[in-house]
Amino acid sequence: MIPKKKETSAGKRIDKIKQLRRQEPSASALIEGIRIGDKAHLARAITLIESSNQDHSEKANEIIEGCLANNKESIRVGITGVPGVGKSTFIEALGKMLTGLGNKVAVLAVDPTSSLTKGSILGDKTRMELLAKDPNAFIRPSPSSQSLGGVARKTRESIMLCETAGYNVILVETVGVGQSETVVHGMVDFFLLLKLAGAGDELQGIKRGIMEMADGVVINKADGANKTEADKAKVEFTGALHLYPAKENNWYPKVLTCSALHNEGITDIWDMITDYTTIAKKSRSFHRNRIQQNQNWFLETVNHNIYQNFYTNPEVKHELDKLLLAIQKNQISPFFAARKLLALQNTP
Amino acid sequence: MIPKKKETSAGKRIDKIKQLRRQEPSASALIEGIRIGDKAHLARAITLIESSNQDHSEKANEIIEGCLANNKESIRVGITGVPGVGKSTFIEALGKMLTGLGNKVAVLAVDPTSSLTKGSILGDKTRMELLAKDPNAFIRPSPSSQSLGGVARKTRESIMLCETAGYNVILVETVGVGQSETVVHGMVDFFLLLKLAGAGDELQGIKRGIMEMADGVVINKADGANKTEADKAKVEFTGALHLYPAKENNWYPKVLTCSALHNEGITDIWDMITDYTTIAKKSRSFHRNRIQQNQNWFLETVNHNIYQNFYTNPEVKHELDKLLLAIQKNQISPFFAARKLLALQNTP
Repeated sequence: MIPKKKETSAGKRIDKIKQLRRQEPSASALIEGIRIGDKAHLARAITLIESSNQDHSEKANEIIEGCLANNKESIRVGITGVPGVGKSTFIEALGKMLTGLGNKVAVLAVDPTSSLTKGSILGDKTRMELLAKDPNAFIRPSPSSQSLGGVARKTRESIMLCETAGYNVILVETVGVGQSETVVHGMVDFFLLLKLAGAGDELQGIKRGIMEMADGVVINKADGANKTEADKAKVEFTGALHLYPAKENNWYPKVLTCSALHNEGITDIWDMITDYTTIAKKSRSFHRNRIQQNQNWFLETVNHNIYQNFYTNPEVKHELDKLLLAIQKNQISPFFAARKLLALQNTP
Repeated sequence: MIPKKKETSAGKRIDKIKQLRRQEPSASALIEGIRIGDKAHLARAITLIESSNQDHSEKANEIIEGCLANNKESIRVGITGVPGVGKSTFIEALGKMLTGLGNKVAVLAVDPTSSLTKGSILGDKTRMELLAKDPNAFIRPSPSSQSLGGVARKTRESIMLCETAGYNVILVETVGVGQSETVVHGMVDFFLLLKLAGAGDELQGIKRGIMEMADGVVINKADGANKTEADKAKVEFTGALHLYPAKENNWYPKVLTCSALHNEGITDIWDMITDYTTIAKKSRSFHRNRIQQNQNWFLETVNHNIYQNFYTNPEVKHELDKLLLAIQKNQISPFFAARKLLALQNTP
C-alpha cells in the first residue's frame, strides 16, 4: 500500500511547495524575487515577457517598470558563429571561468529560426550541463516568437531583468547565418565571432557583413592537428581585419585562437574583452553606444506598438483577410486596398 | 529696339504655350493626358507622386486611382550592376532595340543613395542621349526621397502610370551595392544582373544574395581583348548558378555575354527574357508573382501610412525629441519613454 503523503510532515511540505508553484506570484512579488536574485522568479518573469497573452503582457510591463531603476554595472557580449563551430562548448567554458572569478553569468539566445524548426539552439540545457547547474549562471533559451523583431524586443527586456537580478555578465548567443547577428550587435557592448580554421567563409555560411561587426574573432577548435591551421588562420584574419576602418574608439578587432573543449585560451579571450571595455569606457564610446542602443530600442518599441495597435483591431483583421483575397483575385488594386484598410484607423 | 513679341502671332502662340505650362493641369486632365500617352503629363504626374507636399499627395492619389483601371500587358525588368559595369550603355542599347521592334520603353531608377550624393544615377539624361530623344522611350531619374522605402513606393506607382501611358516594357535600374536590389526584385518580373569578366565579386562589390535573385546574368564589355575572358566567365557563372535551387517554374538562370557599346548580344538577352516570360506565364508563376508583389505593395503602403500618421502628429514630433534627449541623458528608460509616446496615439 502506498502511504498517503499528506499525513507525513515531508508530504505536507512537498504539497506546500507544489501549491506555491501553482500560484502565479504577483508582479511585485516577482520584482522582489528578481531584485534578490531568485532564479525561479527571474525565469517566471521572462516567461511573462515572452508570452503573447494580453493579461501577461500587462503584468510584464509592470515588472519591467519595477526593474528599471537598477543601474548595476554589466558587460553584454554577443557571440555568433555557424552551427558546428562549438558555441555551446565555448560559452560553457567561458561561463564557468567567469563564475569561478566571482561573476554572475546570464546566457540568453536570439534565434528566430527556433520557432520554425521547433528546436531552439539553446532549447536543450544539457548542451551546457555544467553551466546549467552552476548557482551563479542563468541559461535561457531563445523565445519562440515568430519574428526576429519580437525575439529581439523580448531579449532586450530579458537582459534588463537579468541585470536587475545581479547578473553582471550577459552572453547573448546567436547563429551567424541570418539577420539575427545585426540585431544582437545592436544590444551588446562587445561582439564576438567564432570561426573554425580551414573552412572558408562560403563553407561557414558567414555573411560578409558579420566580419565587419566583430570586435573580436576567435578561432575555436585550435587543438591537436588543427593547431597549426588555426595559428595560420589567426595571421590571415588579423591581416584581413586591418583592411576595415578602425572602430569609433580606435579599437582594431583582435583575432585569438582557443580550444573550448580543452579549456585553452579562454582567459585570453576574456582579457581581450575587458581591455576593450576599459578603452571604450575611457573614451566614453561604451556609454555613447549604450545610449544609441537605448534610443533605437525606444523607437523599435514605439513602432512595434503602433503596428500592433492597428493590426490587432478585430475590424482591421477581418478586412485585411478580405482585401488580401481581393488582391489575389485581381478585384482591387493594392493602392486602393491600402486606402480602404487605413480608413479603419480613424474609426473607433 | 526689341520687337514686342505679343504683337506678332508667333509671339502670341509662344505666350499661350508658356501660360499653359505655368498652369498646373487638373488631376483629370493629367489622367486624360497619361491615357493618351502624353509624356509631359506623365512626367508631371510622377512629379506629383514624388512630392512630399500634402496638397500634391491628394492630387497624386486621385491620379493613381484614375489610372488603376488599366490592365495592359507589360513586362517589368529589373537591371542591376555596380557602377562601371556599363548599365547606361546597356539600357540604351536594349531600349533602342526594343523601340525599334515597336515597343514603348520606360526607364525608371531606384537609387536611394542619390538623395545623399545629390546626384541620381539617372539624373543626367545625356547618359542615354539616343534613348532620351526616342519618342517611344520615357526616362525618369530616381526620386530624391530620403528612404529606400519611399523611393520604392513611388517607383511602384510610377510603373503603374507608365503602363497606363502605354509603355509595355518597364526597365527599372538600380545599383547593386545595397538593399535596393531586393526592393527592385520585389517589383519586377525578371531580374537581370550585369557583371564584368575578370573582376571578382569582392571587387565588383556585389552582395552575395544578388546572384541568387538573378533570373539572368549578363557579362558586359565582352569585346576586344575582353572577349575570351568573358566567355570563360560565362562558363564559370553558369556552373555556379546551377548550384542554387531552380526557381519556382524550373527556370535556371541563364548567363549571356554582350557588348552594349558595340550592340552585340542584345537581341539574345531579350530572347532570354521573352523565353522566361513565356514559360512563367504558362506555369502561372508570372501571375502568382505579380499577385504576391501586389499583396506586399498593399501591406507596405498600409505600414507606411500607419507610421506616417503617427509621426507627423505635431504633439508626437515634439515629445519624440524630448524623449530622445531624456534617454541620452539617462533620465528615462527606453521602455518607459515608449509608453509615454504611445500614450499620445489615443489622444485626439
